[in-house]
Amino acid sequence: MTYTAQIKVMPLKDLLDPQGKAVLGGLKNLGLLDVSDVRIGKHIDLKIEAADKESAMQLASDAAKKFLANPVMEVYEIAIN
Amino acid sequence: MTYTAQIKVMPLKDLLDPQGKAVLGGLKNLGLLDVSDVRIGKHIDLKIEAADKESAMQLASDAAKKFLANPVMEVYEIAIN
Repeated sequence: MTYTAQIKVMPLKDLLDPQGKAVLGGLKNLGLLDVSDVRIGKHIDLKIEAADKESAMQLASDAAKKFLANPVMEVYEIAIN
Repeated sequence: MTYTAQIKVMPLKDLLDPQGKAVLGGLKNLGLLDVSDVRIGKHIDLKIEAADKESAMQLASDAAKKFLANPVMEVYEIAIN
């Protein structure tokens, strides 16, 4: 069966996110003053051929661990559907 | 109240996603052969001060339209919580 894995990779909470800071500045300049914090990460959609949801999850988690996320700086969340 | 808006910005389905293609190649090289398609977009978390959920949604949608997504190449989805 074909599953879609949605992987969200975000910078760790304790780390500075310069891209987010820059976007926050841009939003303020546009007049959107009620935004107080911005954090920017990646969203990755994988199409996976797998026998069941568990093995799709396993493969997505492998991909995230080995390749898509840098554990020193990022956390990831995976949703399969 | 403080709301968190999660904005997912993805390249349009009909457009080539060269970053996704490169990652697909990388995953195949790692031996993850059951992945058939990869698309990569941005995930943006906004912290928003707003009176209610509707106005938070309004602000997030403003930000996405004016600044965060390029409607020629990207689609966005917003979730408020």
